[in-house]
Amino acid sequence: MIIIMTNGSTRSQIDDVETKLSQLGFKTHTIYGDIKTVIGAIGDKRNLNTQTILTMPGVESIVPIMKPFKLVGRELKQIPSIVRIGEIEFGGRDIVIIAGPCAIENESTYIDTALKVRAAGASVLRGGAYKPRSSPYSFQGLAEEGLKIMKEASDVTGLKLVTEVIDTRDVELVASYVDIIQIGARNMQNFSLLREVGDAGKPVLLKRGFSATIEEWLMAAEYIAAEGNSQIILCERGIRTFETATRNTLDLSAIPVVKELSHLPVIVDPSHATGSWKYVGSMSKAAVAAGADGLIIEVHIDPSAALSDGPQSLKPEKFIDVMNDIERVAEAVDRKLKRNQDYFHQ
Amino acid sequence: MIIIMTNGSTRSQIDDVETKLSQLGFKTHTIYGDIKTVIGAIGDKRNLNTQTILTMPGVESIVPIMKPFKLVGRELKQIPSIVRIGEIEFGGRDIVIIAGPCAIENESTYIDTALKVRAAGASVLRGGAYKPRSSPYSFQGLAEEGLKIMKEASDVTGLKLVTEVIDTRDVELVASYVDIIQIGARNMQNFSLLREVGDAGKPVLLKRGFSATIEEWLMAAEYIAAEGNSQIILCERGIRTFETATRNTLDLSAIPVVKELSHLPVIVDPSHATGSWKYVGSMSKAAVAAGADGLIIEVHIDPSAALSDGPQSLKPEKFIDVMNDIERVAEAVDRKLKRNQDYFHQ
Amino acid sequence: MIIIMTNGSTRSQIDDVETKLSQLGFKTHTIYGDIKTVIGAIGDKRNLNTQTILTMPGVESIVPIMKPFKLVGRELKQIPSIVRIGEIEFGGRDIVIIAGPCAIENESTYIDTALKVRAAGASVLRGGAYKPRSSPYSFQGLAEEGLKIMKEASDVTGLKLVTEVIDTRDVELVASYVDIIQIGARNMQNFSLLREVGDAGKPVLLKRGFSATIEEWLMAAEYIAAEGNSQIILCERGIRTFETATRNTLDLSAIPVVKELSHLPVIVDPSHATGSWKYVGSMSKAAVAAGADGLIIEVHIDPSAALSDGPQSLKPEKFIDVMNDIERVAEAVDRKLKRNQDYFHQ
Amino acid sequence: MIIIMTNGSTRSQIDDVETKLSQLGFKTHTIYGDIKTVIGAIGDKRNLNTQTILTMPGVESIVPIMKPFKLVGRELKQIPSIVRIGEIEFGGRDIVIIAGPCAIENESTYIDTALKVRAAGASVLRGGAYKPRSSPYSFQGLAEEGLKIMKEASDVTGLKLVTEVIDTRDVELVASYVDIIQIGARNMQNFSLLREVGDAGKPVLLKRGFSATIEEWLMAAEYIAAEGNSQIILCERGIRTFETATRNTLDLSAIPVVKELSHLPVIVDPSHATGSWKYVGSMSKAAVAAGADGLIIEVHIDPSAALSDGPQSLKPEKFIDVMNDIERVAEAVDRKLKRNQDYFHQ
Repeated sequence: MIIIMTNGSTRSQIDDVETKLSQLGFKTHTIYGDIKTVIGAIGDKRNLNTQTILTMPGVESIVPIMKPFKLVGRELKQIPSIVRIGEIEFGGRDIVIIAGPCAIENESTYIDTALKVRAAGASVLRGGAYKPRSSPYSFQGLAEEGLKIMKEASDVTGLKLVTEVIDTRDVELVASYVDIIQIGARNMQNFSLLREVGDAGKPVLLKRGFSATIEEWLMAAEYIAAEGNSQIILCERGIRTFETATRNTLDLSAIPVVKELSHLPVIVDPSHATGSWKYVGSMSKAAVAAGADGLIIEVHIDPSAALSDGPQSLKPEKFIDVMNDIERVAEAVDRKLKRNQDYFHQ
Repeated sequence: MIIIMTNGSTRSQIDDVETKLSQLGFKTHTIYGDIKTVIGAIGDKRNLNTQTILTMPGVESIVPIMKPFKLVGRELKQIPSIVRIGEIEFGGRDIVIIAGPCAIENESTYIDTALKVRAAGASVLRGGAYKPRSSPYSFQGLAEEGLKIMKEASDVTGLKLVTEVIDTRDVELVASYVDIIQIGARNMQNFSLLREVGDAGKPVLLKRGFSATIEEWLMAAEYIAAEGNSQIILCERGIRTFETATRNTLDLSAIPVVKELSHLPVIVDPSHATGSWKYVGSMSKAAVAAGADGLIIEVHIDPSAALSDGPQSLKPEKFIDVMNDIERVAEAVDRKLKRNQDYFHQ
Repeated sequence: MIIIMTNGSTRSQIDDVETKLSQLGFKTHTIYGDIKTVIGAIGDKRNLNTQTILTMPGVESIVPIMKPFKLVGRELKQIPSIVRIGEIEFGGRDIVIIAGPCAIENESTYIDTALKVRAAGASVLRGGAYKPRSSPYSFQGLAEEGLKIMKEASDVTGLKLVTEVIDTRDVELVASYVDIIQIGARNMQNFSLLREVGDAGKPVLLKRGFSATIEEWLMAAEYIAAEGNSQIILCERGIRTFETATRNTLDLSAIPVVKELSHLPVIVDPSHATGSWKYVGSMSKAAVAAGADGLIIEVHIDPSAALSDGPQSLKPEKFIDVMNDIERVAEAVDRKLKRNQDYFHQ
Repeated sequence: MIIIMTNGSTRSQIDDVETKLSQLGFKTHTIYGDIKTVIGAIGDKRNLNTQTILTMPGVESIVPIMKPFKLVGRELKQIPSIVRIGEIEFGGRDIVIIAGPCAIENESTYIDTALKVRAAGASVLRGGAYKPRSSPYSFQGLAEEGLKIMKEASDVTGLKLVTEVIDTRDVELVASYVDIIQIGARNMQNFSLLREVGDAGKPVLLKRGFSATIEEWLMAAEYIAAEGNSQIILCERGIRTFETATRNTLDLSAIPVVKELSHLPVIVDPSHATGSWKYVGSMSKAAVAAGADGLIIEVHIDPSAALSDGPQSLKPEKFIDVMNDIERVAEAVDRKLKRNQDYFHQ
C-alpha cells in the first residue's frame, strides 16, 4: 500500500500517518519528493480497514499494491483449477457446452429441448426454475415444480444440470436437485446468497454482474471461496454500456484478463450478452478463440412460444451448426469441443 | 405496441403477426409503407409475453408505447404521493434529512453521532447493521446487536430509524426494529427481497442500482407496490460511468425525470454517489435545487476511525454547515428544510 | 511516479528499472516488501515518455503521483482565474448567462430571439454558424453568413457573442466576428483545433467531450493554455452513460471536482445535457447550487420551427422564469445573477 | 416514422400533428388506442427536420423506422463491398493484416520494423506522422518528415501504407504519400475532416469513436460516402466503459451487427482496444473468429524505446506467433490469412 500525501502536507501530518500505519502493523518507508511525499507501507493486511487512512489530514490518495482477492487469485495458486462434475471438466483442455431454454415452462417442452440439446452434443442442461424478471408481471418460473422437471430431464438424457438460485432460503432445495448452482448477474453482489451458496457443497456458476468490474467479480468469487467452496466457474455475460445495438456488450477481453489474475475457469454466455440469436454463433466462436473454457447457450424448440428470452434462443437445428462451428475453432486454438458420451450413439 | 417489419417482409409474414396479435387479445391496424410495414397493436397487455412476437419471421423490432409500470406511474395516479413516518412527510413541501454513520460500530460511537445528528436538525437516523461489502474480509456489520443499538439511539434521541436489509430471512426482524427498511443499490433487482419487503408493512427506501436505468428502478418499486405496499421512497445514489474522479456519477437529472414518470417521492444520497465528504455539501445543495424531497447523508463523529466509508462521512460540525446551506437553497426553491422537533430546544 | 513490480520480479529486473529511471533523470527509492517491490521515482518529468517503463520485464504497473496538467491546475496557481469579456466576468461572484438558439437559421428569427434573450437579462448570445451534425443530410449551418447575422444581432442588442468553430481553417474568420470561441464536445480532443484556437487571442469556451474524463478535459484546456491563451471557460454538458431517459447524464459533481483541480471557471449546459426543455429549469438551478459560474441555455422563439435541437430549446417566456428562479438560487449560495446592463431599462 | 402521443393528448393536438406531417410530405395513418394515440407517417424524408414534431403539444416521442444511413447501409446495397488497394482486398475472403509501430520515430527504427512486419507476412504498414496525444507535452509526430520515411519504407518493403490525418489542412499532403487515410477514434465526428477525406480520392480507414454508437459510426461513414468516396474500411477499436482492467472494452459483437447493417468491410484494432500486448493475441484470434475482415496490430522492434504506446506493441517475434495463430483460426471459419507476396521468398 502506498500513501500519496497532498502537495502542502506538513511534517507533522506525515508523522501522524506513519504512526497510524505502524499501529496497524505496517512497516513504513517514506520518500520525500520535491513536491510530493509518498509513504510505502509494507504488510499484507487485507482485512484491516486501512481505507480510513484516507480521512487523515494531508492524505491525497492511497494506492493498493496487492490484489484484494487471495483464494481465487493467481498470486498464491499459479496452476489453473479444474472444476469437475462427473467426467466433465471445466478449465482443462475441453470446451464444455451448457445449453437449454431460459426458463422451464412445462415438462414436454423442456424434455423435448433437452433431447435436442443432447443430440447436438452439449454436456450440461440449463433451465430456470426461479426467474429474476424486471417486471413483477412477467413469468417468474415454476419453482420446485421446475426443479422436478429438470431432474426428470436429467434422468432421461443423462445430462448434468445447472439452474439459478435467487433466494437464500432456496439454496438447500436447489442444491438437492442440480449439479451446478448458478448465481445470476443481478445477484453477483448479493453477499448473503454468495455465502449460502458457498456452504452448499456444489459447484457454482458465477455470472459477472452487468456492471461489475473484473475485480468485483473476482471478489464475489472470493466470498464463495472464503466459505470453503473453490468449485467456481466464472461466466462472462456482457456488461452494460452506452451501445444499444446489442442488449449488453460482451467483454471478451475479460477472458485473458481473468486468466491472468485468477486460476478459475471462465465460460461465456453469448445469448444474454447480445440478446439476439443472430449474434450467438459469431460470439460463440469468438469466445472460444479468445480462450473461454466453455459456453452457455440458450436453445428452445420453439423460440416464438418461449415465456422468456425467446429472441435470443437458438432453434435446435441452428444450435447443431453452432456446435460444429465451435468444434473447428476449438481445434484451431488447440482445444477440443466436449461432446456428451451419447453423442455418437444417437 | 408497434411492430416494425423488416424491409423484405412478405404478406404472409404480416398476416401471421396479425393473427398472433389477435390471438393475444390485441386489435391491430397495419400501415403499409413504401419500404416498411408497421403494425399497431391496441390493448394494454402488460402481463403477456408479447416479446415473443420478436421471434416471428419478418419482424424487425417492437416498440412499446405504454410504460411497463402501473402502480408507481403517473399515468394512473397524477397526484404526488406522500410517505409519512409519524409527523415526517417525504414528498410534501418539506426537505427531510436522514443522517448518521455508514455502519453501527458500537453503542457509544453510534449514540454520540445520533445526538450530533439530532442537534443539527436531521429527522431520521441511518446506520447499517448488515453491510454489503465487496470484500468478504471487511467488517460486515453487527446484525441484530446493531439493530438493538439503533433502537436505543432512537429512544435517546426521538429520531426515526432507517437501516438496510440484505437477506429475505432478516426482513421480519429488521421491520420489528426500524421505521423505514432500506433496499441497497446492489439489491435493487433482488426480486425476492423486494417482494419480502413489500409484505413487511413498513415504508421502504429504495436505492437506485448503480447501473439501473430509471425505468428499471421504477420497475423495482413496482415489485414492492405489487405486494400492496405503496409507501416507497426512491433514492438516487449515483450511477456507474467511465469517470473515476468521483466514486459514481450522481445523476441529478433523474429527479425531474422520476417526478414526471412517477408519483413517488425521491431523495438523494450525495455521500455514496461522490465517495468524498468534500463534495457532499455542493451536491446536497444541487439536489435540493433540482427538486429532491430529501437527502441521506453520512455523518460520523470520527471519520478516521470509521469501519466503513469514513472518507465520505461528514464530521458533525461540517454537517451543521451543510444543513444551514441546504436551508437557504430550500427556501430559494419554495421548499422548507424539515428540522426535528427538538431542534430549537437544544 | 511509483513503479510496482510483479510478485516474481528478480533483483536484476529491479536494477534495470532503477538504471533506466536514473538515465531519465529521476532519483529512485526502492521499497522491498515481503511479496512486492515498489520503486519511487522522484522528479517532475511530465514530458518524458516514462510510460515505456511499463514495457520493462518485471514491471506490473505505474502510478503517477503528479497531475499531468500544469498551467490549468491548482498546484501552481491557487487563485481562481477570472475570464473577462468587457464588463462580464466568468469565475467571479457573478453567475453569467449565455443564451440563444442552437443554430442561426435566418436574420429575423435570430435577431428576434436575441432581443428576447436580452430582455430576459442574459449577457452573452449564442448561435451556431458551423453545426457538427451526426447526419450529413441535416442542416449544417450558414457559415460566414451566419457570423454576419450574429454580428448584426450583437450590434442591435449589445450582447457579447459566442459560437462554435469546427475546422482549423475557420478559426481566424470566426475570431474576427465573435467574443468567445467555442470548442464543442465532439472536438474536445481535436488537438489541431485546440492549438489553433489557443493562438487566436480570444477567450475559449471548452466543452467537455461527452465521453471525456475530467482529467482529459483539463488536458484539452492545457493544450490551449500551452499556446499562451489562458482565457478558458470550461463547460460541463453531460456525459454518455447507459441511461437513455435523458440525452446525456449531466455530471454536476464535475463542478466541485474541477474547482478543486483547476483555477478555471466552469459553466453548465443543461440543454444539451438533458436534451429536453422540460429538465432545463431544474438542472439550471442545480448547476448554480453546485457552484457553476454560469450557464449556457438554448432559447428559440419558435422551437417547433427550429432547424436543430428544437426539443431542448426554451421559449422566451419560459426562459424568463428560469432566469428568475436562478436568481433566487444564486443568492442562496452567495452568488449574484448577472443581468445585462439594459435589463432594467427595458 | 411513428409519432406516439401523450395519454391526455387532445383531438386538436392530433389534428395539428397530422397537418404538420402532411405539410412535410408524409402520408399519415392514425391509430386511436384506448389510452394512447399513435400516428404512422409514411415517406422517406431523411433530410427533413422531422424531429421538431417532438416539440409540438401532445407529442410524447417519435420512433424512426428507417435507418438514418443510406449509402453505407444494407437496405439499398445488399452485396458486401470490397475495398481494393492493389492486389489487397478488404471485405472478401482474405483476412488482411495491417501492422507497424504507433508512431514513426526515425528512419532506421521504422524501416527495421517494416522489414520485420513484412517478414511476418503483413500486407499494409501502419505508422503515425501526426499523433493525437492527450498531453500537449507528449511527442506529437514527425509530420511530413514522417510521411517521407513511410514512403521510403514502402519503397523498401513493397508494403502499402496507412496513416492518420488529424487536420483538414493536411489531407491533401497525406493523400499524396499513403494508400489509405486513417480517421482516428477521436476524430470520428470531426465532420469537416470526414468531408475532406471523402474528397481526397483515397480509401479511408474509419475508426469507431471510443464512445460512438454503431449507428453514429455508420453515419460518420455516410459523411465520407456522401462526398462520393465509398472506399471505406471500418475499424472497431474498443469503447469506453466502466471497466479499467483494459484500456477500452473491445466490442466484438459490433462485427456481426455492422455486417448486418452495412455492406462495408470491418477490421479490428486489438492493440488500442486492450492497451496491452499481452491481450493482443487472444483478441486477434477472437476478432477473426467473430468475422472481422482484418486486423491492425501495433508492432515495434523495441517497445521499451517507443515514443508512444510501447506497452501495447508486440515485438516482431511475438507478432510472428500471432500471425500463425490467426492463420489457423481464419481457416476454421473458412477465411484465409492474406500474406504479402514476398512472404515465401524470404
